[in-house]
Amino acid sequence: MDHGLRRRRLVERLPELGVDAMYVTRLPNVRYLTGFTGSNGQLLLTAEEAVFFTDGRYGEQSRHEVEGVERVIYLDGAAPVVPEARSRGVGRLGFESGGVTFRSWEELRERADGIDLVPLGPEVERLRRVKDAAEVALIARAQEAADAAFERVVLGGGLREGLTERELALELEVAMRGAGAERPGFETIAAFGRNAAEPHHQPTDRPLARGDVVKVDFGAMVGGYHSDMTRTVAFGSPPSRLREVHETVAAAHRAGVDAVRDGVSTVEVDHAARSVIQEAGLGEAFPHGLGHGVGLEIHEDPFLRREHEDRLAAGMVVTIEPGVYLPGLGGVRIEDMVEVTADGCRAIPRSTKELVLL
Amino acid sequence: MDHGLRRRRLVERLPELGVDAMYVTRLPNVRYLTGFTGSNGQLLLTAEEAVFFTDGRYGEQSRHEVEGVERVIYLDGAAPVVPEARSRGVGRLGFESGGVTFRSWEELRERADGIDLVPLGPEVERLRRVKDAAEVALIARAQEAADAAFERVVLGGGLREGLTERELALELEVAMRGAGAERPGFETIAAFGRNAAEPHHQPTDRPLARGDVVKVDFGAMVGGYHSDMTRTVAFGSPPSRLREVHETVAAAHRAGVDAVRDGVSTVEVDHAARSVIQEAGLGEAFPHGLGHGVGLEIHEDPFLRREHEDRLAAGMVVTIEPGVYLPGLGGVRIEDMVEVTADGCRAIPRSTKELVLL
Repeated sequence: MDHGLRRRRLVERLPELGVDAMYVTRLPNVRYLTGFTGSNGQLLLTAEEAVFFTDGRYGEQSRHEVEGVERVIYLDGAAPVVPEARSRGVGRLGFESGGVTFRSWEELRERADGIDLVPLGPEVERLRRVKDAAEVALIARAQEAADAAFERVVLGGGLREGLTERELALELEVAMRGAGAERPGFETIAAFGRNAAEPHHQPTDRPLARGDVVKVDFGAMVGGYHSDMTRTVAFGSPPSRLREVHETVAAAHRAGVDAVRDGVSTVEVDHAARSVIQEAGLGEAFPHGLGHGVGLEIHEDPFLRREHEDRLAAGMVVTIEPGVYLPGLGGVRIEDMVEVTADGCRAIPRSTKELVLL
Repeated sequence: MDHGLRRRRLVERLPELGVDAMYVTRLPNVRYLTGFTGSNGQLLLTAEEAVFFTDGRYGEQSRHEVEGVERVIYLDGAAPVVPEARSRGVGRLGFESGGVTFRSWEELRERADGIDLVPLGPEVERLRRVKDAAEVALIARAQEAADAAFERVVLGGGLREGLTERELALELEVAMRGAGAERPGFETIAAFGRNAAEPHHQPTDRPLARGDVVKVDFGAMVGGYHSDMTRTVAFGSPPSRLREVHETVAAAHRAGVDAVRDGVSTVEVDHAARSVIQEAGLGEAFPHGLGHGVGLEIHEDPFLRREHEDRLAAGMVVTIEPGVYLPGLGGVRIEDMVEVTADGCRAIPRSTKELVLL
């Protein structure tokens, strides 16, 4: 990862943003710009210099990870960004308005010492939207770990009567680590039978029984990058209504994927998938957006929703994840990440999307 | 958990806070006041009513989890707090200044429609500082899972030449789940040999070798509550310098624990432990605070630091975790959670704090 290049691309924008420097506080953005992987770090970028701040827990780690940047290790309290900015002649300091709480902004303002604080939009997130080849490769490696876990644990005979949702989630997570994941990318969702009617069900001690659908939404992390996949299979013979629903969701998924291409509106892609579900009379049972970007965050720009239009571009990695949820019966979601290309997209997972009966 | 009682305690404070209602947006606070365990939820509290907001992914889940509260399920975008507040005659709406980004505050202000937005301090966090018996019991259950994992994996013969830091971290996490944890409470730290010189080392593929110190900082989650423990042991015979350091850190830990009691200053407790390390000439090698509260968040109020004085009170659960880190050689940290009592404190973990040679 060429962190210096990324910083230069951001610094080039400072004049048009009307600031002398930018204070980056959102952790995935700090990682994107420096490589720092710890839990507390900030970055001050001026036209000439970059200053990285962290606390004493990360002095040694940041020495290894953060290159070509001055480092300031502070003790208790907040990063001494104001004195560092002042000593560099910064008059107008941009900050991430989505990365600073109201209280932190008040505290920063009290210490500002004559420096103008200028709220900025998601400038680093804008750079992060389109992935480079190295980033796509890490996402693909994370997905490989998830595919391997799905094939081994779910398709490979791991489903058995009495297995609990929690046990299945743990088995998937252990298998992902065995297949190269640093760790799970987010809390694994494993939902059996009626529990699959909750889109974001948290695994319980509910045991698997014949006739249950099994919905798993899980992913890995490799090099800080995430993967995200949902599959719905059946243990034994599922209710016929859910077989029909699976066909509808699969058709909606295909319609969504078919709509993806460089330049397309996110609302148009959402509509392509949603209309399939609406035409089946199930519009109310699909209560969430169609997808989201994936990268250093599991949910990041761009979002594919009914409203708030955005545009896809080649090199973005987004999920397509329509779902239908029927309280009392169960639910189906199918999710793949796709990489947007000039004339379409490329699916990243290799796992089957069929309603496999196990 | 009596969520209604907690909400009433908060609502009683509205008049002195000078607001008609409070908008709670920090997720652990929403969970504390409602029981909601999902990843997106907000709460509006007026003197008479409570309104819970979430998105469509959590409609079904919140129906089970959130009792005695009106629920509003919204689609894309932000919670419709302003219309709900207006319809209840709210003129002055308090918000959590530490739980709203500057951007969210700007957006809220644009929609405020005549309602005054009043920044409030950590009002819910203040209630959360002192734990009730049910909360302490969950923390203790989380710690039992961690103790069991430590005894089984580390003390029970799991350390072996070639074992990697990542493998050890995974084994601890799997063992915690087997011992009743819902999941790990945070990213497990496992550091061998020189890597232990990083206070917050992230596990790597570094294999264990004879003579390494082994530092593990890990915890479980049960019912949303965390545990937090650090132990440093040795695989074979460690450098004699690190044996001395372990004695110093253990003495500092005891001094910190001995200083804990109802009403004591957090700075005084930090000083009691830190001075032991300083007197050993290692003050610079202890670059972090002494401890922090533990509960629905792994790090929460009160914090025990060199500065920013606070007071401990009976019923708080805090960590005492002095450490000494020597780049090129290794490091030692010893951490226990203690429950503050009227005349001292009660250690929650049962695991030995000795430098066990394995």
